[in-house]
Amino acid sequence: MLGAMQDFELRVPRLIDHAAREHGSRAIVTRWADGRETRTNWAGIAHDARRLAQALETLGMKPGDRIATLGMNHAHHLAAWYGVIGMGGIVHTINPRLFDEQLVYIANHAEDRVLLYDRAFAPLVERLRARWTTIEHFVMFDGDGPDGYDAFLAPHDGDYAWVEGDERDPCMLCYTSGTTGDPKGVLYEHRSTLLHAMAEVAPAVMNLSSRSVALPVVPMFHAAAWGLPFAGALAGVTFVLSAVNDAAVLCALMNAERVTHSAGVPTVWLALFGHIDATGEAPRYLEQVTIGGSAAPRAMIERIMNMGVRVAHLWGMTETSPIGTAGSPPPEWDMMTPTAQIDLVCKQGQIPFGIELRIVDDSGVSLPRDGVASGRLQVRGPWVVKRYFRAERDAVDADGWFDTGDVAVLHPDGSMQITDRSKDVIKSGGEWISSVELENAAMGCPGVAEAAAIGLPHPKWDERPLLLVVRKPGATVTDADVLAHLAGHVARWWLPDAVVFVESLPHTATGKLLKLALREQYKDFPVAA
Amino acid sequence: MLGAMQDFELRVPRLIDHAAREHGSRAIVTRWADGRETRTNWAGIAHDARRLAQALETLGMKPGDRIATLGMNHAHHLAAWYGVIGMGGIVHTINPRLFDEQLVYIANHAEDRVLLYDRAFAPLVERLRARWTTIEHFVMFDGDGPDGYDAFLAPHDGDYAWVEGDERDPCMLCYTSGTTGDPKGVLYEHRSTLLHAMAEVAPAVMNLSSRSVALPVVPMFHAAAWGLPFAGALAGVTFVLSAVNDAAVLCALMNAERVTHSAGVPTVWLALFGHIDATGEAPRYLEQVTIGGSAAPRAMIERIMNMGVRVAHLWGMTETSPIGTAGSPPPEWDMMTPTAQIDLVCKQGQIPFGIELRIVDDSGVSLPRDGVASGRLQVRGPWVVKRYFRAERDAVDADGWFDTGDVAVLHPDGSMQITDRSKDVIKSGGEWISSVELENAAMGCPGVAEAAAIGLPHPKWDERPLLLVVRKPGATVTDADVLAHLAGHVARWWLPDAVVFVESLPHTATGKLLKLALREQYKDFPVAA
Repeated sequence: MLGAMQDFELRVPRLIDHAAREHGSRAIVTRWADGRETRTNWAGIAHDARRLAQALETLGMKPGDRIATLGMNHAHHLAAWYGVIGMGGIVHTINPRLFDEQLVYIANHAEDRVLLYDRAFAPLVERLRARWTTIEHFVMFDGDGPDGYDAFLAPHDGDYAWVEGDERDPCMLCYTSGTTGDPKGVLYEHRSTLLHAMAEVAPAVMNLSSRSVALPVVPMFHAAAWGLPFAGALAGVTFVLSAVNDAAVLCALMNAERVTHSAGVPTVWLALFGHIDATGEAPRYLEQVTIGGSAAPRAMIERIMNMGVRVAHLWGMTETSPIGTAGSPPPEWDMMTPTAQIDLVCKQGQIPFGIELRIVDDSGVSLPRDGVASGRLQVRGPWVVKRYFRAERDAVDADGWFDTGDVAVLHPDGSMQITDRSKDVIKSGGEWISSVELENAAMGCPGVAEAAAIGLPHPKWDERPLLLVVRKPGATVTDADVLAHLAGHVARWWLPDAVVFVESLPHTATGKLLKLALREQYKDFPVAA
Repeated sequence: MLGAMQDFELRVPRLIDHAAREHGSRAIVTRWADGRETRTNWAGIAHDARRLAQALETLGMKPGDRIATLGMNHAHHLAAWYGVIGMGGIVHTINPRLFDEQLVYIANHAEDRVLLYDRAFAPLVERLRARWTTIEHFVMFDGDGPDGYDAFLAPHDGDYAWVEGDERDPCMLCYTSGTTGDPKGVLYEHRSTLLHAMAEVAPAVMNLSSRSVALPVVPMFHAAAWGLPFAGALAGVTFVLSAVNDAAVLCALMNAERVTHSAGVPTVWLALFGHIDATGEAPRYLEQVTIGGSAAPRAMIERIMNMGVRVAHLWGMTETSPIGTAGSPPPEWDMMTPTAQIDLVCKQGQIPFGIELRIVDDSGVSLPRDGVASGRLQVRGPWVVKRYFRAERDAVDADGWFDTGDVAVLHPDGSMQITDRSKDVIKSGGEWISSVELENAAMGCPGVAEAAAIGLPHPKWDERPLLLVVRKPGATVTDADVLAHLAGHVARWWLPDAVVFVESLPHTATGKLLKLALREQYKDFPVAA
C-alpha cells in the first residue's frame, strides 16, 4: 500500500522557482572584476536562467549535455547554473587554478560542448582552446561583444518551461584536483543536490534564512561553492558575490551590504586579518563564518570568535557535495569556558542527518567512537559519491562506504576530528603521529608563519618526523625555539628529528600543502640512527 | 543518464537511528500524569522502539497494519511511533477529545489492530472497546500490570533490524476532526514525513538544533504534534514531554529543564499568562514560541515578544503534515518599529521550500499576490495530501491544488494572512467581511474575553454580522463599548448589527470555534431591515 501524499520530484529548478516566487525581490549583488557593482534579485536570476536555457537550446544543446563554466562568483554565473540545469544540462564547473594538463584533460573527459568563462580567464581559454576537442561554443560572462553573455541572451524572452525528468538525473559535474593520478569527476544529481541544500540551511550547518546576507568567498568552481548557490535559493538569502578575492574588496562589501554569513578557506581569513591590522577596518555585521577546505588554525578561530562571530568548521570534499560535518554549539555551549569552546570549534563538527561516518583500521575493522582511537575516515549518505563519472566500478565498498583518505577521531559527544590525511600520517614505531597536529602546534610558536610535517624513512622506527618551517617576515625563531615550544604541546616521541627553515612551501590549486612533493624533495634528508 | 550518487531511501527509521547514533545521550524527559518524572535519551527511545517492534511482530502484526495510539506526550508514546513505523506499521494517532461516535468511526475505518493508550483514557477505552470491531490487543502506556507497556516490552531485547521498504510507503494516519461529515484520514508517507522534518528544523520554521530544548505542548494526537517528534530526532534536540497540559506544570518544567523552544495552540499561552499573573513565575529560558492551530490574538503575540521571545505563527492543517507557512524575521526586522514587527508576526508567515500557495476566487480564477485581494487558499507540495485514506477520488484538482477551506491574502513580501474560513466569511452587499478580523478587533476591547462573529441571513445585504461576546470575569463591558471600540478598527459597514453577551462559546475538539452550531442557534435572530 502506497501512501497518498502528493508527487513532488526533487528537481533543482524547484529551487530557483521558489526563490523567484517567495523571495523574488531579495538582492543579488555582484562586485565584478573591473570594479563595477551591479544588483539584480532572485526574480532577475530566474529570468536570466530561462533566457540562458533558451539560448543553449538554440545552440542545439540537449538534456544530459555538459556545459562548462570557468568563472568566479557573480550573478551571471549563478544564473548560468540554473539555466543549464533547467534545460536538463549538466553544469561542469572548471577550476581555473588547475594546471593546463588537468584543464585539458577534464574538459575533454567531460566532453563539454559549451564554455562560459570570465574575461579574467581569457588568456587561459586562448591558450587551451585548440586542445579542447569537444567545446563548440565560447561565451564570455563579462564580455560586451558578440560572444558575450548579454549578446547570447539578447534574442530570448525567458518564456520557457524547465525540462522535466527524473530526480536522479545528473545536474552538475565537479572534478577533484587530486595530488596523484587524473582528476576524477563527481556527478551530482538533482535529488542529491536538493537534499544537500535542505540539510545545509539548518541551524546546525549554515543557519540560513531569508534574513541572511551571504557572501560566499569560496568560489563556485570549488565543490559548488559548498552548495551555497542552491541552499541560498532555498532559504531566499540576499547574496553578495565578488568576482575578486581581495581582502579590502571583501571587507568593504561586507560592511556596505551588511553581510551576516560568509564562508571560505582559512587563507581568506588570514588575508582579512592582514587587512584589519593594516587599516583598522573590520567586518561589522558578520554573525557566522564557516571555514572549510582545510582545518583552521586555533588562533584564527579564536580571533574570529573574539569578534563576536559564530565560527564553524565545515568538513567535506567534492565527493560529499561537500557537507560531511559542520560545527554548531551544543546545549552546553553557554556553560563552557572560552577555552573549551575553542577546543570544540577546532574539531570538524557534528554529523548532519543523512551522513554516516565511521573510522576503520588498516585492515578495515571498525574502531570505537571513544575520542581516542584514530582511523581511516569513511562516509556514506545521499549526497556522497557512489561512482565517479565514466568510471567502470564503484568508488565505495559493498556496504556503501566511501574512503575519504582522511584520518580522524570520532568523539563520544558526536563530534569528529580530522587528525591527518591517511597518506600524510607519520608511522613511527608502530604508532601514528599526526602531521596536522604537529603543524598546528608549530604554528602556535611565535615567529612561525607556516609549517609542514612529513615522515622520513627510518631504518629503526619505520618513519620519523621532519618539520619544515616558514618564518614570519622579520622573525628570527630558531629550531631550538620551535622544539621547545612543541615539547609543551605534543608527546615526546612526536618531536621532529629536525626542523628545517624554508622560504615557502608548495600548495595545491586549492591551497593544501603538497606533501607528496615535499616527501620527494627530502627523501634523502639524513636521519639520526 | 542517471547520476552516480548513493542510494538512500527516505525512510523514517533513519531519523531514530541518526538521533541514537549522533545524539544518543540527549535527554528525553517525561512528566507523567501521576506527577512522576522520568528521564531517558534518544538511545533509550531507539532501544524501546526496537523492543516494541519485536513485541508487535510477536502479536502477528505485519507491515501496513494500523496500530493506534490514544496518548498524551511522553517517552513511551514517542518510542511507540518509531517502533510501529520501524516494523513497517502505520501509527494511527487518535484524538481523545473527539466525540464517541467519531472515535468509533475512525478506529473501525482505519481497521486498527492494536491500541496503545494512557491510563487517563481508560474510561473511554472501556466505554468503546466493544464497539471497536477490529482492535485485537490493548496496551496501557503507563500501566504496570500484565497489559502494561513494560510487560509488553519485557520479553524483548531490542536486537531487531527495521523493516525495509519503499520511501513512499505509508507510516502514519491522522484523521481530521471536521465540523461536518465523517472524519477523513490523511495517510503520511515515509518520504513526505522526512522531507517535512528536514524543512521543519530550518531557521525560518522551527529553528531546531541539538542545542534546542523543546517542549511541544501541542499533543502528539494533534497533526503529529506538528511533526516535532520527527524534526526533533533529525536535529537531536533535548525533549521535555508533559502528559498533562497544565500551565503550572508546564512553567515549572520549562524552568527546571531550561526549555528554549515550545509550540502550542493559543489557549496554551492564555493559560500560561494566567499562571504568570497569579504566581509571578514566568518561563526564563524560552527563545522561540510557535503558535498554530488557530490565529494568535495580537495582544498575545505582543506579550510573548515583550518577554524577549521570538514568536512565530505556524499555519497548516492535518492535510499539510502540517506545515504550510511559518513566521520568521525578514532581513529588515531590526530596522522595523515594534508595531510593524507585531503586524508582521500577526500574519501567518512565509512559505517554506516545497510548499506552494495560491488564492482563487469563487470561480477558481487565480488572484494576485497584492496584499489586497482575498480568496480561497489552495496549497500543494510534497507533504500535502493527495487522496484521503480509502477515498475513491483525489482531494486535489487536476493541477494538484488542495483547497484548504481558508480565505487568505497573499502579500507582496511573501507573507500569507488568513482572513477567515471560507464557510465563516460574512458576505455582505457583494463584499466579504472577515469574521476573524472582527473577532480579533473585538478581543482588543477591554473586558472582552472571547468573541465570535457570524453572518445572519439578511433580505437586503445577503448577510450581516452578529457578534457574540464572552465577558472577562467581573467585567461590565457593554455593547456600546464594543461597538465604539470596533469603530476605531474596522470599516463602518463591517460593524455588527448587534452584540450579544453569552456565558461561553462552543468549541471543537481542537479548540476552534464551532460556528456551524452558532449559526444554527442564531439563525432566527432579528435583523434590522
